[in-house]
Amino acid sequence: MDKKELLKKFGLNVKFARMKKGVTQEQFAELMGVHPTYIGKIETGRINMSLAKVLELAEVLDVDINKLLYIE
Amino acid sequence: MDKKELLKKFGLNVKFARMKKGVTQEQFAELMGVHPTYIGKIETGRINMSLAKVLELAEVLDVDINKLLYIE
Repeated sequence: MDKKELLKKFGLNVKFARMKKGVTQEQFAELMGVHPTYIGKIETGRINMSLAKVLELAEVLDVDINKLLYIE
Repeated sequence: MDKKELLKKFGLNVKFARMKKGVTQEQFAELMGVHPTYIGKIETGRINMSLAKVLELAEVLDVDINKLLYIE
């Protein structure tokens, strides 16, 4: 697995968790205090996020961090 | 869980994986091309690492990235 693939898989985890929570990218962005384009970038694997930032995402999405970090 | 706890748990995952591989912090540092103190910092949760960097660690330690990313 290369870095690109890793980030894509992680991004899909975020996307699925967001969809399960039933919020749009715009709503998620507002909850996170970021620009909506940033959410799009995360979900398409264009952000190399730090572990602490992933924790923030998990808290806002109200999911176990392992759900976001499990790379299939 | 807070950020500190997350990074500590992640650091222990790295430490256990390194010990299972049977390499010292110094040897691991050499394999990673970093200073040994950096390895100590990772293992004690003082580095907020990016996902791509975790992938590098996993490759050098020859473990599945999920072993490093699973937060108990």
